[in-house]
Amino acid sequence: MAAQSEQILAMAANIFLEKIAFHKMLQLQLQHYSLDRVELAIDMRPELMGNPHHQILHGGVTATLLDGAAGMTALAGIINNHPELSAAELATRLSNLGTIDMRVDYLRPGRGNRFIATGQVIRTGNKVAVIRSELHNEDGEHIAFGTCTYLVG
Amino acid sequence: MAAQSEQILAMAANIFLEKIAFHKMLQLQLQHYSLDRVELAIDMRPELMGNPHHQILHGGVTATLLDGAAGMTALAGIINNHPELSAAELATRLSNLGTIDMRVDYLRPGRGNRFIATGQVIRTGNKVAVIRSELHNEDGEHIAFGTCTYLVG
Amino acid sequence: MAAQSEQILAMAANIFLEKIAFHKMLQLQLQHYSLDRVELAIDMRPELMGNPHHQILHGGVTATLLDGAAGMTALAGIINNHPELSAAELATRLSNLGTIDMRVDYLRPGRGNRFIATGQVIRTGNKVAVIRSELHNEDGEHIAFGTCTYLVG
Amino acid sequence: MAAQSEQILAMAANIFLEKIAFHKMLQLQLQHYSLDRVELAIDMRPELMGNPHHQILHGGVTATLLDGAAGMTALAGIINNHPELSAAELATRLSNLGTIDMRVDYLRPGRGNRFIATGQVIRTGNKVAVIRSELHNEDGEHIAFGTCTYLVG
Repeated sequence: MAAQSEQILAMAANIFLEKIAFHKMLQLQLQHYSLDRVELAIDMRPELMGNPHHQILHGGVTATLLDGAAGMTALAGIINNHPELSAAELATRLSNLGTIDMRVDYLRPGRGNRFIATGQVIRTGNKVAVIRSELHNEDGEHIAFGTCTYLVG
Repeated sequence: MAAQSEQILAMAANIFLEKIAFHKMLQLQLQHYSLDRVELAIDMRPELMGNPHHQILHGGVTATLLDGAAGMTALAGIINNHPELSAAELATRLSNLGTIDMRVDYLRPGRGNRFIATGQVIRTGNKVAVIRSELHNEDGEHIAFGTCTYLVG
Repeated sequence: MAAQSEQILAMAANIFLEKIAFHKMLQLQLQHYSLDRVELAIDMRPELMGNPHHQILHGGVTATLLDGAAGMTALAGIINNHPELSAAELATRLSNLGTIDMRVDYLRPGRGNRFIATGQVIRTGNKVAVIRSELHNEDGEHIAFGTCTYLVG
Repeated sequence: MAAQSEQILAMAANIFLEKIAFHKMLQLQLQHYSLDRVELAIDMRPELMGNPHHQILHGGVTATLLDGAAGMTALAGIINNHPELSAAELATRLSNLGTIDMRVDYLRPGRGNRFIATGQVIRTGNKVAVIRSELHNEDGEHIAFGTCTYLVG
């Protein structure tokens, strides 16, 4: 079972990083992905900046990281809740996981060299999952957080 | 006065499209920008896709478009409300315009060849502006909408 | 069919106003309820005030009105989409209609003698409905708006 | 200084519970209020129910509790950040504290005999504060959480 979970997570990570073209363009990195913890990271570079004066991370990148970490957290939650599902069934679930809505709270200007998004399951049910995600920089400063609602059924 | 407004909008459009590197990478287009109306557009291409199965626009691109159209609408609202401000003062306002929070409602899968985001001022004050933005595809299908709160003071 | 719809709306209105004790305590009024339009109203009185200095409507009453109008709009949307459902089936749907999340934007201080909340269907599907609702006072001033997501499946 | 803070919190608690008529009608209780922690409570009773079938807390009461706990947390945050402010200045701040927007996530049906709302400062600045609040029942079940943005300047 544990072996199967790991295999599924590895498959999901591969789809997330390699098959979703926008993630490749952004050069997202899954620096950790287990059933318990997601760490989605990105290194700062000029193309990701949103404000030429302040040289900070663009809010759209922030939103993408928060949604990405939350979605991967939701998937891990489904795997946790449904150990009976086969890899094929989970792949279908993953492909149908849809964001219903997302709120992003921008707390501080996105200064830093590397940003890490993490997620936490708040609600998980047969139909809807709610995930809270956070974005920090390499110094642990809290840049933004997200509240994401997914249709999982 | 009108001439000054147009000049300021042109300057803001130039900063938005040329100086914000993330917008250049995405290849955003301001197909219309006046004090009354903002139309921020993007042409679909593989790098913008979020779901390899469904070939739809990535939710992070959707969020970026909704935030971008809303921010440009907020700026037009400031110009409308403060005809006395000089170009330099407005440039400072633009540079300090900060997103406090944003909600995105994803209504339909982002299918289409071209996506257009528009904005509407809901609240405009000395400190806070609230803008509602919408994303449609080239057939007029409503893909998503945003509710964005900005610090404008 | 039309006659059945009217009967169901009347039944739903009765439950909403008479069986939900909190609505009775607040003295909510459905000044209009048809498949096309919901108008949920309340008359100002001291118990509904939120700020002793400014004598304005309490934000919790605002939230209740926005959620109430949105929920009744979602129900009307279900009836519109499913003319084949019997009264009993719709009653079950009504009883299971659950708010997933709600965002309230407070635009202006809630001054006025009477407040009217209306709703508009933004998304309606088999599983999730998104409704936007607005609160105005008797002079048509826009006090607040809501964005409400419901589980309808 | 500490003595002054306690005096101001006591004054704020008195306004919150006694001078805001809607809170009196709901019979809100501040079971704890210090600079570090807010616990806003309510005992279940029929008038607070939102669903006659399920006998659960009305979502509007939930929203009121989440907003109330968040607002009192924001005020405590202002006092923490500005030990130099006099009682009169803080009273003015309190009176001007305005909710910009609020998101409520409804996680579980509101079953229970007593509900307790708590708050946590996420962002606190000169202009805007963001507070996250949570509602639990007497068994510690997490019923809902709120994300509230306040204008504090």
